[in-house]
Amino acid sequence: MTPSSRLFFEDVEIGMTFKTGSVTIDAAGIRSFASKFDPQPYHLDRDAADASLFGGLCASGWHVCALMMRMLSDCVDEAGLKMIGNDNVPWLKWRMPVFENDRLHAVISIAECRHGEGDPNHGEVVCDVDVLNQDDKTVMSLNTVLQVARRDITEAEGARI
Amino acid sequence: MTPSSRLFFEDVEIGMTFKTGSVTIDAAGIRSFASKFDPQPYHLDRDAADASLFGGLCASGWHVCALMMRMLSDCVDEAGLKMIGNDNVPWLKWRMPVFENDRLHAVISIAECRHGEGDPNHGEVVCDVDVLNQDDKTVMSLNTVLQVARRDITEAEGARI
Repeated sequence: MTPSSRLFFEDVEIGMTFKTGSVTIDAAGIRSFASKFDPQPYHLDRDAADASLFGGLCASGWHVCALMMRMLSDCVDEAGLKMIGNDNVPWLKWRMPVFENDRLHAVISIAECRHGEGDPNHGEVVCDVDVLNQDDKTVMSLNTVLQVARRDITEAEGARI
Repeated sequence: MTPSSRLFFEDVEIGMTFKTGSVTIDAAGIRSFASKFDPQPYHLDRDAADASLFGGLCASGWHVCALMMRMLSDCVDEAGLKMIGNDNVPWLKWRMPVFENDRLHAVISIAECRHGEGDPNHGEVVCDVDVLNQDDKTVMSLNTVLQVARRDITEAEGARI
């Protein structure tokens, strides 16, 4: 990637939106994640899931978070935005179950840009993220704070951070 | 498990705490999760991680969430608490990096019990969860809302939900 195609903190504006690529979740993936991290019957067993409140085999909410992170990470990379990390999720809500074979994507909206405390090499970008399924229904929403590299510091140091 | 050893919404009180079992995270686990869900250099490559702000190979924050869920799930099962699901994380903060070979456990404190809206079969239990490492430093904190089965409804229906 050439430096000119990179986006820094100074390039980010409130109201900007990014649409990520999509990912399809299958039953094997749902069970694999759940068996390691969230072994509830409605994430593992189709009969138990059919009889549950959810009415079908559905993904762990934390699996949806992990998939969201991958979509966000790929999207941010593609946009050339230099994300240093994120350390704060002011809120997160799972709104609908994610069933096997659902196709998900995310929409990221920039809600706030602030200098933040501590490390002067980055600014804080507050994002609203919605994860949507193939019917454009929102399955999860969260607000998260990304640390994004600042151009003035980066270029002054001549560093690729 | 005998019915008498199960805990229902009516048995949960503000101030109760539960300490989970522990889990050790290794480099292979960190890389495996990150390569699927959060492919940042500081989660994948030891040299890049050493040179990063974190100063060492460290786990994706979402990996720590997933491990927290497993510890919480096992602990709740062991306590006999019938958790139906969780749909809401009012806040979540990653406080310190989790490095390879760190040994984590969690402490769950009941902050609020409320009847909630919607389904009368469960009540909502608001929990503060701290994930700590082997030095008893808090690496992640979150507040989450669990749906817990109510005894009066469950016993009236004679159902195992």
